[in-house]
Amino acid sequence: MKQKPTLDFWYEFASPYSYPAAMQIQDLARTKGVTINWKPFLLGPIFSAQGWQDSPFNIYPAKGAYMWRDMERICLQQSLPFQQPNIFPANSVLAAKVAMAGANEGWIAPYTRVVYTAAFADGLDISKPETIGMILASLDLDAANILERAQTGEGTQLRQQTEAAIAKGIFGAPSFTVRDELFWGGDRLLDAINWALENR
Amino acid sequence: MKQKPTLDFWYEFASPYSYPAAMQIQDLARTKGVTINWKPFLLGPIFSAQGWQDSPFNIYPAKGAYMWRDMERICLQQSLPFQQPNIFPANSVLAAKVAMAGANEGWIAPYTRVVYTAAFADGLDISKPETIGMILASLDLDAANILERAQTGEGTQLRQQTEAAIAKGIFGAPSFTVRDELFWGGDRLLDAINWALENR
Repeated sequence: MKQKPTLDFWYEFASPYSYPAAMQIQDLARTKGVTINWKPFLLGPIFSAQGWQDSPFNIYPAKGAYMWRDMERICLQQSLPFQQPNIFPANSVLAAKVAMAGANEGWIAPYTRVVYTAAFADGLDISKPETIGMILASLDLDAANILERAQTGEGTQLRQQTEAAIAKGIFGAPSFTVRDELFWGGDRLLDAINWALENR
Repeated sequence: MKQKPTLDFWYEFASPYSYPAAMQIQDLARTKGVTINWKPFLLGPIFSAQGWQDSPFNIYPAKGAYMWRDMERICLQQSLPFQQPNIFPANSVLAAKVAMAGANEGWIAPYTRVVYTAAFADGLDISKPETIGMILASLDLDAANILERAQTGEGTQLRQQTEAAIAKGIFGAPSFTVRDELFWGGDRLLDAINWALENR
């Protein structure tokens, strides 16, 4: 008996290219009959192990200039609002810890989309508990309670998920995996979905 | 009066992802009615200015492991033969100098395809004059004469083309430009062709 095909979606809340991927993945996967596992992780420890103390988009200016222009084009094509954040990369640790709670409790997908919209469309600072609290409240969740839990717990789960990303060979975001098969970059989303369908 | 749309194709003979792009670009562009300008350049000086003395695929092992697997998938999808070269990255200076002669004399497109096939399908060492000579001979060109000219001249033209790539903001290969609009990566080829059509 064949299982329903599933795709792991690995993303980092500070990653620009993860924004358009996060906004389109659910509709696309639903159309194709693939289940998405939402897997936030942190790029900071991965970059830092490569000797980078900042985003490669800041370290390598030509790459950064290209990425911001490319984001404009991609968002226009997907009819997504976009504005370049004032602070880049955002500290995404709190947003990701809260997302782990969302994974445990079933609200990670809408939460993820609202966080990305805040960061890359509304110009909000997602490192602030106030911003995340507002986002949680907008989803009719108990912001104070979730924030308190995330700031004291959920760190271990996030660290483990980042370790799991490294073990899969992940080095950037967004990434997609079907068991050990890795696809990197938003423009490989459809390839990854097709792989999930053909290799269930 | 509208001009025939043109796309500049920037590639580096040592770049794996440039191989499938080079093999498909002409047919795709012809179907769409876009003219391709073949623009070989060197990534070495660009990487070196970023502090890299080797390919990022060697410096960052996770990125490298991913790229070789991804090349297998992409070549399979395009029905292209593929084998990982023994020496990576190849010294591509001679191949690129000879390509400049090909640009001047009208045989750059077929020459480029045969060099990429030698490097990424046949396991040949394209840094050797013998390999390039054999390739030129297979195209019914005067190998000895072209090699002699390339080894004495054509260096200036190649340096200028690499400078032009840097001025366009190019930081990797393959890249595609329509005037100042830059697209990076083989999976953006169709986007670049469409841009050329919509912004002629």
